[in-house]
Amino acid sequence: MKNRNEKNIGSKLKIIPLGGLEQIGMNITAFQYEDCIVVVDCGLSFPDDDMLGIDLVIPDITYLLENADKVKGFVITHGHEDHIGALPYILKQLNVPVYATRLTMGLIENKLKEHNLTNQIKTKVVKFGQSINLGCMRVEFIKTNHSIVDAAALAIYSPAGVVVHTGDFKVDYTPVFGDAIDLQRFAELGKKGVLALMCDSTNAERPGFTQSEKTLGHIFDTIFAEHKNTRIIIATFASNVDRVQQIINSAYKYDRKVVLEGRSMVNVIETASNLGCLDIPDNTLIPIEQLKNYPDEKTVIITTGSQGESMAALSRMAGNIHKKISINPNDTIIFSSNPIPGNEKAVTKVINELSRKGAEVIFQDAHVSGHACQEEIKLIYSLVKPQYAIPVHGEYKHLKAQEKLATELGMDKENIFILSSGEVLELDERSAAVTGKVPVGDILVDGLGVGDVGNIVLRDRQHLAEDGIMIVVLALDDSGLVSGPDIVSRGFVYVRESDELMEEARELLYDTVENCLDRGISDWGKIKSSIKDSLGDYVWKKTKRRPMILPIILEV
Amino acid sequence: MKNRNEKNIGSKLKIIPLGGLEQIGMNITAFQYEDCIVVVDCGLSFPDDDMLGIDLVIPDITYLLENADKVKGFVITHGHEDHIGALPYILKQLNVPVYATRLTMGLIENKLKEHNLTNQIKTKVVKFGQSINLGCMRVEFIKTNHSIVDAAALAIYSPAGVVVHTGDFKVDYTPVFGDAIDLQRFAELGKKGVLALMCDSTNAERPGFTQSEKTLGHIFDTIFAEHKNTRIIIATFASNVDRVQQIINSAYKYDRKVVLEGRSMVNVIETASNLGCLDIPDNTLIPIEQLKNYPDEKTVIITTGSQGESMAALSRMAGNIHKKISINPNDTIIFSSNPIPGNEKAVTKVINELSRKGAEVIFQDAHVSGHACQEEIKLIYSLVKPQYAIPVHGEYKHLKAQEKLATELGMDKENIFILSSGEVLELDERSAAVTGKVPVGDILVDGLGVGDVGNIVLRDRQHLAEDGIMIVVLALDDSGLVSGPDIVSRGFVYVRESDELMEEARELLYDTVENCLDRGISDWGKIKSSIKDSLGDYVWKKTKRRPMILPIILEV
Repeated sequence: MKNRNEKNIGSKLKIIPLGGLEQIGMNITAFQYEDCIVVVDCGLSFPDDDMLGIDLVIPDITYLLENADKVKGFVITHGHEDHIGALPYILKQLNVPVYATRLTMGLIENKLKEHNLTNQIKTKVVKFGQSINLGCMRVEFIKTNHSIVDAAALAIYSPAGVVVHTGDFKVDYTPVFGDAIDLQRFAELGKKGVLALMCDSTNAERPGFTQSEKTLGHIFDTIFAEHKNTRIIIATFASNVDRVQQIINSAYKYDRKVVLEGRSMVNVIETASNLGCLDIPDNTLIPIEQLKNYPDEKTVIITTGSQGESMAALSRMAGNIHKKISINPNDTIIFSSNPIPGNEKAVTKVINELSRKGAEVIFQDAHVSGHACQEEIKLIYSLVKPQYAIPVHGEYKHLKAQEKLATELGMDKENIFILSSGEVLELDERSAAVTGKVPVGDILVDGLGVGDVGNIVLRDRQHLAEDGIMIVVLALDDSGLVSGPDIVSRGFVYVRESDELMEEARELLYDTVENCLDRGISDWGKIKSSIKDSLGDYVWKKTKRRPMILPIILEV
Repeated sequence: MKNRNEKNIGSKLKIIPLGGLEQIGMNITAFQYEDCIVVVDCGLSFPDDDMLGIDLVIPDITYLLENADKVKGFVITHGHEDHIGALPYILKQLNVPVYATRLTMGLIENKLKEHNLTNQIKTKVVKFGQSINLGCMRVEFIKTNHSIVDAAALAIYSPAGVVVHTGDFKVDYTPVFGDAIDLQRFAELGKKGVLALMCDSTNAERPGFTQSEKTLGHIFDTIFAEHKNTRIIIATFASNVDRVQQIINSAYKYDRKVVLEGRSMVNVIETASNLGCLDIPDNTLIPIEQLKNYPDEKTVIITTGSQGESMAALSRMAGNIHKKISINPNDTIIFSSNPIPGNEKAVTKVINELSRKGAEVIFQDAHVSGHACQEEIKLIYSLVKPQYAIPVHGEYKHLKAQEKLATELGMDKENIFILSSGEVLELDERSAAVTGKVPVGDILVDGLGVGDVGNIVLRDRQHLAEDGIMIVVLALDDSGLVSGPDIVSRGFVYVRESDELMEEARELLYDTVENCLDRGISDWGKIKSSIKDSLGDYVWKKTKRRPMILPIILEV
């Protein structure tokens, strides 16, 4: 029974992360006050190693669909895939407006176009400092810094209080493009009273302060000065527009032409350039076809592939399958990136391949992180002074590390919530508690299929990948066996060299089937079981492998 | 035509790496002088990510088999898998004596037993400082330090000169067990004249000096002192006997009982203990069954799983599927290891799972490397002063880093050879050059099968893993189609939710087959091609996936 007094002083705000807390990526969080839902971000995640054949993973939004009439829109913090990548898939199911800053929206609109959704979705570009009203809530966009231009923190105003969501951020006092993070606004909000802070945890284990993006400008200048006689190839993240700007600055200073290579590099930089996020001197960019008109030492190639992705431009150069660029001993190749966990081996492979071609490879010191380290996180907490804290963006160990920082700053551990995806945190000035759970999960995207590959299909793929398949085919009519059993295998053994094994197996199966029929067994299910058992046992005994065994019976 | 004078001053020594230079692991190198071949190490490597279902990889020893009568034996530097793991497989094909130091031989004999080879192979334990004569060559075992006890460097004496092979090593002035590396002997050999040095490159990119194993003793003591009220679980490499010794020392000092957990941990420590490589105080080790008789704060569990291996003991504890140990908030878990490249994500997953159960996880500062950093490599070069250098043990970038160190020490780049597996380096005091190539490669081991899975089978497994398989079965007799076509799929879509797709495909295939038969096509190959084409096109159009399509025709 609800207390009347409680009701009078209003409802609580619900914060419901629908993804992003069990993994890196797939960030999406619903903020609900009574009949009004605002969703922050709508990201994808990349498949785990055991999700064979899967292209990408998007969040299960059952909860939003069940409350579709309440959802006022998506507000997006910045344009990275783990924050915008699921939008086109989700908007097809839930057509609501999308709000974002300039470059973020530019990248979203590219996606909508790819998915033939242009003009079907209401979008609105928001400026820093501006607020948008969404039902009973209001969302203000606050300038931050990150490894992509136009990243925003959000102040979410609800009748139950204000929540500050940092998005992915760092504190860069000397950004390459645009303003530094609006620390004054964080302070002002803190002074007025912030109910809860949701702060980026990615680097919460790292002490100190993340270096300014601008420090790399000097490093590029130094590398260019030291490599006046070679071609320079720099691999970095396509979305790091400031990084590309600084490389272009160094190229211009050292009188080199710049080629952009890799589909996402070309697309993102074109979008950013059209929106005025880049300042490229005339006659600096040249199309890749003109590369041959300039001597090596007068060119720079900025390319995708810094993560060793097998089909990216740099990997194709390393593997000698790039159509327009061959690596040679007169190349200096810079990895302006750190390997994302899981990509270490792939990156090392590319480095080794490039080195073997005689190129000099520089893979240290040409990168800075886009995320706040411990001192920056403490700074934000000290400005915002939230009543509650909900660490976000990170694996469990990162969230725990932020919790530790917050308690060191004097926060009560009971006011810090490490949530799991799907948990409903209800809060207002009086109290906060997890009060329920909504459905969440991974929806797998494979080709055009969204959600049609689930656990059963994945388990089959893993089984097939491990030991292959043996298919046993036979035809029966009323009188008995009329053809087969034949065995066809794929991914098990090289059949031409395993004649004997296959022949013995065939004879065994013939006996198995005849034996079933002799005993009057006409239930196909039972015959199939017998086939699986006898072939499985035989193969295990002979090879210690367990291929998938698939009996198929045709009725003639 | 050979010059008579040349012949008089003797043949050259051939150094032929049969593995280990294109990857981490699978170390095996042949040293040949005329009719005498000595092989150093015989390791395995672990499968690459694209070698689906493969258990391990061993070297192709065609060259040794073709020269079997010349092979005098294997000399082994130390007992890690990448140096001994292929021995039982190779010895089955090439029965020659094996020479190694005490613990190394203990571990080799465990392997021979597993493969039912005990007493079939001649083995001889060699002491440090001792030499063995192998045909016209002699091999001396020299004490070094490494992350396993009883690691040896080798001095290989041939009529063409002496080669020093460091094996995997570090310089530890204060080893936990036994003596420090015998630097005096390296110096003595250098003084007398060394033809070539083959030196460990693993850490050649790292400046400075690798810390002594003994520094960890203090770290364990500190952790034990700070965690007097919790159970302590430490994950480390089973083969790092010194590490286990130091943990046992701390446990004894802090009055805790020690449990060893994980098959390889129990086996290796038992072997090492029997050989006198460990000093375990009485009543310190207890069987896991007795754990429940002691309070948490009186126990330490030393376990496998420091690399996040999915079936190792620690991973089973983290995943709640360990039968005897459950993680709880009163656990302090220490990773005394660094993730091997490629294992980062798996390790992080285990750390997150353990943290979620409330345990404190310590994964920094409780490990030192077993490999020489730059200053140690320079020290060995400065003592040995070789005429030629052949960097070994490392990826290409590591070998290049050692080359750079050697040139900084004044070596001529022309006297440094970065070899590829299979290259034949011929050398003597007058000259050295790569003069040929022998066959090398990866032999894949899958279950009992050695080499029966090759590229075709792997390609099929990759295809099956990516998009699954669709099997089309039909029966024909003289009159035409008598049954089918039926479609059975695995790993493609969840069939129950794709009725329509499968039904349409079936109808399409019926038309395809009837059309073939109507046109009088009786060549089954052509019918199968038509099935593949029409089903492939249809499925791609509908799903943008390319499952393997396997038509099977039965004749009735």
